[in-house]
Amino acid sequence: MSILDKINSPADLKALSFNELEPLCAELREFLIDNVSKTGGHLASNLGVVELTVALHRVFDFPTDKLVFDVGHQSYVHKILTGRKGGFSELRKFCGLSGFPKRAESEYDCFNTGHSSTSVSAALGFSRARDLNKENYNIIALFGDGALTGGMMYEAMNDAGNAKTPLILILNDNAMSISKNVGAVSKHLRNLRISPFYFRSKHAVEEFLRKVPIGGKATANLLKNIKRWVRRMVIPTTLFDDLGFTYMGPINGHDLRSLISCLEYAKDEKKPIILHVMTKKGKGYAHAEANPQKFHGIGAFDKETGRTEKHSETYSERFGAALCRIADFNDRVVAITGAMPNGTGLDWFASQFKDRFFDVGIAEQHGVTLAAGLAAAGYIPVIPLYSSFLQRAYDQTLHDVCLQNLHVVFPVDRAGVVGADGETHQGIYDISYLSHMPNMSILSPCRLTEFEQMLDYAVNVHNGPIAIRYPRGSEEYGGMLPYFAYGKALILREGTDVTVVATGRMVKKADEICAGLEKDGISCELIAVPTIKPLDTAAIIKSAQKTHKVITIEDNVKIGGMGSMIATAASEGGIECSLRIFAFPDKIIPQGSVAELDETYGLGNGEIIDYVKNTVRCSSDK
Amino acid sequence: MSILDKINSPADLKALSFNELEPLCAELREFLIDNVSKTGGHLASNLGVVELTVALHRVFDFPTDKLVFDVGHQSYVHKILTGRKGGFSELRKFCGLSGFPKRAESEYDCFNTGHSSTSVSAALGFSRARDLNKENYNIIALFGDGALTGGMMYEAMNDAGNAKTPLILILNDNAMSISKNVGAVSKHLRNLRISPFYFRSKHAVEEFLRKVPIGGKATANLLKNIKRWVRRMVIPTTLFDDLGFTYMGPINGHDLRSLISCLEYAKDEKKPIILHVMTKKGKGYAHAEANPQKFHGIGAFDKETGRTEKHSETYSERFGAALCRIADFNDRVVAITGAMPNGTGLDWFASQFKDRFFDVGIAEQHGVTLAAGLAAAGYIPVIPLYSSFLQRAYDQTLHDVCLQNLHVVFPVDRAGVVGADGETHQGIYDISYLSHMPNMSILSPCRLTEFEQMLDYAVNVHNGPIAIRYPRGSEEYGGMLPYFAYGKALILREGTDVTVVATGRMVKKADEICAGLEKDGISCELIAVPTIKPLDTAAIIKSAQKTHKVITIEDNVKIGGMGSMIATAASEGGIECSLRIFAFPDKIIPQGSVAELDETYGLGNGEIIDYVKNTVRCSSDK
Repeated sequence: MSILDKINSPADLKALSFNELEPLCAELREFLIDNVSKTGGHLASNLGVVELTVALHRVFDFPTDKLVFDVGHQSYVHKILTGRKGGFSELRKFCGLSGFPKRAESEYDCFNTGHSSTSVSAALGFSRARDLNKENYNIIALFGDGALTGGMMYEAMNDAGNAKTPLILILNDNAMSISKNVGAVSKHLRNLRISPFYFRSKHAVEEFLRKVPIGGKATANLLKNIKRWVRRMVIPTTLFDDLGFTYMGPINGHDLRSLISCLEYAKDEKKPIILHVMTKKGKGYAHAEANPQKFHGIGAFDKETGRTEKHSETYSERFGAALCRIADFNDRVVAITGAMPNGTGLDWFASQFKDRFFDVGIAEQHGVTLAAGLAAAGYIPVIPLYSSFLQRAYDQTLHDVCLQNLHVVFPVDRAGVVGADGETHQGIYDISYLSHMPNMSILSPCRLTEFEQMLDYAVNVHNGPIAIRYPRGSEEYGGMLPYFAYGKALILREGTDVTVVATGRMVKKADEICAGLEKDGISCELIAVPTIKPLDTAAIIKSAQKTHKVITIEDNVKIGGMGSMIATAASEGGIECSLRIFAFPDKIIPQGSVAELDETYGLGNGEIIDYVKNTVRCSSDK
Repeated sequence: MSILDKINSPADLKALSFNELEPLCAELREFLIDNVSKTGGHLASNLGVVELTVALHRVFDFPTDKLVFDVGHQSYVHKILTGRKGGFSELRKFCGLSGFPKRAESEYDCFNTGHSSTSVSAALGFSRARDLNKENYNIIALFGDGALTGGMMYEAMNDAGNAKTPLILILNDNAMSISKNVGAVSKHLRNLRISPFYFRSKHAVEEFLRKVPIGGKATANLLKNIKRWVRRMVIPTTLFDDLGFTYMGPINGHDLRSLISCLEYAKDEKKPIILHVMTKKGKGYAHAEANPQKFHGIGAFDKETGRTEKHSETYSERFGAALCRIADFNDRVVAITGAMPNGTGLDWFASQFKDRFFDVGIAEQHGVTLAAGLAAAGYIPVIPLYSSFLQRAYDQTLHDVCLQNLHVVFPVDRAGVVGADGETHQGIYDISYLSHMPNMSILSPCRLTEFEQMLDYAVNVHNGPIAIRYPRGSEEYGGMLPYFAYGKALILREGTDVTVVATGRMVKKADEICAGLEKDGISCELIAVPTIKPLDTAAIIKSAQKTHKVITIEDNVKIGGMGSMIATAASEGGIECSLRIFAFPDKIIPQGSVAELDETYGLGNGEIIDYVKNTVRCSSDK
């Protein structure tokens, strides 16, 4: 029986002897590699925090003490240690174990996460609640150095550092977020990494100064001057001291003894404290150590070789290739990424156009306003962001770009449901949150060639803010398409019984549905909507006046989506037709494959076909 | 002829002798007080930057050099000096001079602003464009210490400090944002304020250390140790050095000679530099110096006494009073503000419930996630934010509050058009950006008593995220209302010819319209919508089936607004009726009185009455 077999709760972990902890860590790594190689998931970040997580559960008493994860994809070891190791075969699957902390899953998960840089804010909420309750437990926020590129962290530290409420921040510094970290803070951390262990500067310095002997007169003056300098400038000394935290570090994040003793110390401090823990992303698995970016979030892979299966060209890859081609001809094109040159396909651009590429860190707000500044100065910024992360820059997109009608191109990657990452990563809100911004145009391709044409249009022809939303992966509509024309809907099938309007990924599905219906003798008019805003209502209304039955299909929520826009146009136009919107409902859409989510939430082909059949039958009965 | 009379451009300013500058500053102050006392506007912040703005225009060559304002309400002096002093009689009026920088207004305004903390991002965009163009002009971002509480600033400084591109930041430190500043950074600034002038710490210290003599053995060791300490910890010394900027300050912001010489120095530095300028908000006008918060943004006032006209009780004031009453009985209630205890009416709560009140600074993102943390820990956080500022926390509201279905109450103040502040402050997007968030409820009162009932419901009865949107000012529907019932629409008038659906401020307008129509013999059914989400579609559809004519009125944009929701419900319900949505169009809605904006953008009573008359006449002709 292995040591890990005996661990079903933190109490079991506490019962181990210290000497059993290192072998346990080795077993945890083996467990992670074994399982994630089969299911896919976030591997490298979890391999990096094995010792740290073990030490946390050894020192603190969860769930009385609270552990708030930042992002949360580094919570696997915590899940294993808190009775959930049996769930790992269903990790990130529909109805299976989540890859992120989930309150509904365990009392050990006190706050759900998914997006970066939220942990200190949430932890401070718990601290203040504890203080108001006059209770005395410990609250820990665990975040990576990548999270420190997000502005929310400073807002939170500014508040927490001043509040003086006991709060333990743990900075898990692996010098990476998803890609290599950027920025001045990252450089500051590099300096701290190579410094000797440092703690309680203020007390230590004051102590030191008190002990300095005063010798001859010249020396006395000199020392007085030095003392003044030191007092004036030594304190505070790190960015974190400036923000009101006591800094402790650097700590070797793979040395259990240091970790445990520092955590014990921090526990007794009872004030805002930050532990700077150095870890190695991918630690203990050679393939992941060598390529932590690839093994950050990965599909199933071969444990021996580290190889993943080949996939078809994705929208992200096409984006990267197309943008390089475009930038070659247009030297006003610049690209901005929020710490994801790889995920968004920008890595080629980054190497080919070094001067025109800006990685701002996990800082979508700054990224978008930086783009606005570049656009105001005559450049054409292209800023690809995942749909769920562009949410962070809602205000900047509206206030800095749209209100000034600046020419910024927003490739919105991972639009629609994304699968295994679940609710926090579903890109099903962007039509709703972008469509009401004045001057904003929204495009959505149904195949890669169309996408490339759109990107060309958005950069070289359009003038003003423009978003192109496209899904994760590479699924395409297989039929022929004319060259992209801005603002024009496309009639892909002509028919008389029902009008089927679809956009983006859903064009392929709509085409399959039409094919199914036509087998049953129902004549379908299929309209693809490459331009969601401005919407080609004329084309849709014309078809509706012919068929009197319209269904719309989109991978966005129903409220504020494309179907709602069509309903509004039909209502105000006084068009007599039945209308049914197929879109994601006003519910939390969890993890699962895209097909499972479509099926479960009313977007399965069968359900849509049945609806149309019934409607057509009813109306022909009349 | 005064000196100011001669100034019609920055060139005129440059032509003055140095000795004329101080008298010019006095005249500028007089001009500001004279004009703003008549028009209203932002006074205190502009009085504070008179010398600074004069010095900037003396040293730099705008518009070749670029000046990016943060927020922008401190741009009046800049406007006066750049040929716009004639516009001040129409300041902040419909079609008049804007109270914020506007590219369309002058080539001296290079970037539009209105929300806080965007200036460094935008300025960095200009810097990078200049570098790519291989040009050599200067770029300046001018921001207050309040802006430093916003996380975007750190995202931008993290990027800019590392980029090493020449960029001049000017921190206008008056120790206030709108209210008194909060947080650890504010404390850090307080320490810097009282320090001696400091610049180029690194060089100075290295120089000093080289000169230290090595004496006897003990002294030698001591000094070596001190040197090590100093080297290790002195550099960098301010938060800004940590972020890669050269810090220069503090500088007396009312001393023209210091300002000009420091700006000249900064101009030649050609790297990221920050000037810490100390100013007094309201400087030179006793009433404003004594009460800078009141004179931050103010209506017309008596120049001699500083008194403004009395106004009726506002929604914000009622909110503050009601929350105190509620908190008295419910000790789980906590309140959070984003640097606006006064503007939102929270100042009473702040003084009565000190322990349960948290001012996070201009940090809406952190504020909302802090609220989520408090809610997860069992408290009921109430976080009033202006509609246009809640935009900043779109992601946190969706990701941290709604996806976890946490009980956070969002009083959304200044919802709808706000008047003189113009496009950046219009609260006309919140129905559209909140309605598609799962678990979110949206209420909107048409009178103060109803508002109070809603707040009571939201805090004490509801469970989950809930927003209450209410307008600036105090306009109310005057008729009787039943006690608020969640999710129920109210039939305020029964009728047969037309259904008029209205929400919030528009209920009063709709009632007036109905009264007008009934004089002409048109029978109106008036439905008020206190709960926008979940929408009482049953009541609306029932009325539509009777009248077959529906108009909806709301002070939100049309796309994604209440009317769209009703259109969707009507379309999908197969309801045969004509529908017309009266809402703000998909355009930039500029400054102007609420009445002027209603009139101009299709929401004037006359226009709506005419529409209904025509529609009813058409259908009775049939």
